[in-house]
Amino acid sequence: MLNQVKAVELALLVGGKDYRALRDALSEMHEVDVAQFIEELPKKQSVVLFRLLPKDQAMEVFAELSVETQERIASAVTDDELSDLVEELAVDDAVDMLEEMPAALVKRVLKTSSHETRSLINQFLHYPDDSAGSIMTAEYTNLRRDMTVEAAIKRIRRTGEDRETIYNCYVTDDSRLLVGVVTVKDILLARDDETVESLMETNIISVATTEDRETAVNLMAKYDLMSLPVVDAEGRLVGIVTIDDAMDAMQEEATEDFQRMSAMAPSERPYLRTGVLSMARNRVLWLTVLMVSAMITGYILGLYEEAFIALPLLVTFIPMLTDTGGNAGSQSSTMVIRGMALGEISTKDAPAIVAKELGVSLLVGVPLAVVNYARVLIGYPGQAAVGLTVSLAMLITVGLANTIGGILPILAKLFRADPALMASPLIATLVDAMSLVVYFTVATLLLPV
Amino acid sequence: MLNQVKAVELALLVGGKDYRALRDALSEMHEVDVAQFIEELPKKQSVVLFRLLPKDQAMEVFAELSVETQERIASAVTDDELSDLVEELAVDDAVDMLEEMPAALVKRVLKTSSHETRSLINQFLHYPDDSAGSIMTAEYTNLRRDMTVEAAIKRIRRTGEDRETIYNCYVTDDSRLLVGVVTVKDILLARDDETVESLMETNIISVATTEDRETAVNLMAKYDLMSLPVVDAEGRLVGIVTIDDAMDAMQEEATEDFQRMSAMAPSERPYLRTGVLSMARNRVLWLTVLMVSAMITGYILGLYEEAFIALPLLVTFIPMLTDTGGNAGSQSSTMVIRGMALGEISTKDAPAIVAKELGVSLLVGVPLAVVNYARVLIGYPGQAAVGLTVSLAMLITVGLANTIGGILPILAKLFRADPALMASPLIATLVDAMSLVVYFTVATLLLPV
Repeated sequence: MLNQVKAVELALLVGGKDYRALRDALSEMHEVDVAQFIEELPKKQSVVLFRLLPKDQAMEVFAELSVETQERIASAVTDDELSDLVEELAVDDAVDMLEEMPAALVKRVLKTSSHETRSLINQFLHYPDDSAGSIMTAEYTNLRRDMTVEAAIKRIRRTGEDRETIYNCYVTDDSRLLVGVVTVKDILLARDDETVESLMETNIISVATTEDRETAVNLMAKYDLMSLPVVDAEGRLVGIVTIDDAMDAMQEEATEDFQRMSAMAPSERPYLRTGVLSMARNRVLWLTVLMVSAMITGYILGLYEEAFIALPLLVTFIPMLTDTGGNAGSQSSTMVIRGMALGEISTKDAPAIVAKELGVSLLVGVPLAVVNYARVLIGYPGQAAVGLTVSLAMLITVGLANTIGGILPILAKLFRADPALMASPLIATLVDAMSLVVYFTVATLLLPV
Repeated sequence: MLNQVKAVELALLVGGKDYRALRDALSEMHEVDVAQFIEELPKKQSVVLFRLLPKDQAMEVFAELSVETQERIASAVTDDELSDLVEELAVDDAVDMLEEMPAALVKRVLKTSSHETRSLINQFLHYPDDSAGSIMTAEYTNLRRDMTVEAAIKRIRRTGEDRETIYNCYVTDDSRLLVGVVTVKDILLARDDETVESLMETNIISVATTEDRETAVNLMAKYDLMSLPVVDAEGRLVGIVTIDDAMDAMQEEATEDFQRMSAMAPSERPYLRTGVLSMARNRVLWLTVLMVSAMITGYILGLYEEAFIALPLLVTFIPMLTDTGGNAGSQSSTMVIRGMALGEISTKDAPAIVAKELGVSLLVGVPLAVVNYARVLIGYPGQAAVGLTVSLAMLITVGLANTIGGILPILAKLFRADPALMASPLIATLVDAMSLVVYFTVATLLLPV
């Protein structure tokens, strides 16, 4: 692993231009660590260092670099070298890179790549972002059902290029329809003269290219799959999602949800490597939208000016009431958003959610209301009516907050928006306004204001 | 896959006690789907259905059931059947089950299991919750370095029980020290007379049993590993984490963080299968703690009673100010918490975080302040001093909120608490109080209150 001591040691060699020792040190390292070290170097030196790597390692390291660094290197190498690098990339990674590159460089990459790679790239460019198609790889082991185990092992030995793609083999018929799956283990444990057909599983779990990548990942997690076949609209096999890509997608999807749920535009770059400017850009839009919404809450509060001038004590309970409402609402919305992301909750569960949230709000709201009543009686003797007002407002607020928190993510889904937007910040803002209306309505009914 | 149509069809067979047809239908299904169907049945029928399954399928299905259902079945079967079920479970799954079971049942399970299983279970019971040791499996393929490829393939064929554990083989020496890793693919592609030593990778990525499971999962994601060796304090191989368990752990860790970050006690049960009572229990504690904290905010607000009676307009800006501060703070804290969960941020990055957050707060705070100033001038002509007060308070609040949001998760880590606790609800409550102090301090300086 690349730790700080190792990184300093390497940097000293770079600084001293001791390229022979550097090359030796790098050749012992994992490609992921070499890539990480390259990312930490100044731009110019990163290209120098990359060009020091022996060809095989260079290709492995290239696949692990960020798109920015890939672009810098692509601009610096010859056409032949560029062609080698692109041919060696998995098609999905090549597409990710091309989508971010300037047009001139894209043209050069496509010009230097083989006809086959070019047409695969064009095909992949059409899959929607975040679809199963966009994270699949076109390299998989394909068997025919009439093959013997002996022939199958030969074919696996000949074609098994990437370690993650050989363990499940896919059986297709003449029109490329997916008809079975067989594991390398089953093949290894069988007799040489058995046929693939006799070993294969025909009850196949697969996804369509256009399906959400989250669906693909959830299926793989649920059924413990090492790879998942991806088929086109006619059921023809076009690629597979391997588990390492699924794991990366799972991590990215969760990160995106964390960011959306805290009112930020999602970004894949690690925090420490994101610039202050782009970080501010990701945050300011939602902050402004929510601030303007909170102005409406302020306006509502202004409408009750007479009430709180008549009884200023009322004001001191506002933060407690609005905060608790916001917290209760975001508890519900988080549970529902996460459940939807994991495929455990669908839109048809709305009635069950409302019932459950109302139940929870009663169980949670009553103790909170009691605590408040007791607190007012102790802190402000003789103000029992104020205590009753606060307690009642609390109970109603929690009920509303839980219901809204539970149902808004479902509504978002129905309107094809991301449920993760219906999280804490937005819910809290909505509940704020509502809890004030509830509070002052109850107050005008129960108190002389 | 188990959809509603299929589930209804099966339920009709259960209802009609058509056990022969039911058994036929179940035998075609994936064990995960059978387990899911069993979970949806009433308690009594779930046991009946389980006992219908042929032995091999029963053992596979048992591993996929929830601990509650496992317990119910364990109480209903004979000692011999119980022994078979437990022997067939991976040790980590058996331990998960035993940790939740009543003592009498645990005793019965341990009594009926083999000596070897019993001592493994006892060993696993000592690994801390959420450690790498707690999610590893003791079943892996172990080779010696002087074996030939032919001997290695024979051994893999003989011992490779679980498909997920054969693809990486681990090479140990006489004292069980881990000395190398070799993939099945490398073995398949090599000549029969080559030795394991000539093929194995000696630059091994591993974790200690006591390390956090999150660390293990992040390593596997970073280096695209199908399995990760787990070693004891002396470097002896004791087990491996397989990628399917890593993926489950990744999903659970993210879910836990989502729940903690919304002020809930974490729970692994799916939303729709969690009772109202236990859901309320998971939520009420933090709601109460935060409510009491918000009372302090209310108390602070009460201290400025004279100010807002003198100038009631001030009150209408409070929700906007406190909400925006809370939102800004939770944006920062979310970025830092997620970065720490992914292993991208460590406590030593605190200075970099503070610098970055102050920069962001300036870029974000200035436009928000300008919007506010303009809004006051337009909405309340002649109140320029109020506009200045609100804008200045906004700028300071965002700066404080971002810094606190960025730094509190780091502090939590230093005090060995979960950084995910330092999220939106707690940050918002803290920032609320601070923003009020800032606001009224600025107001008393700039306004005649």
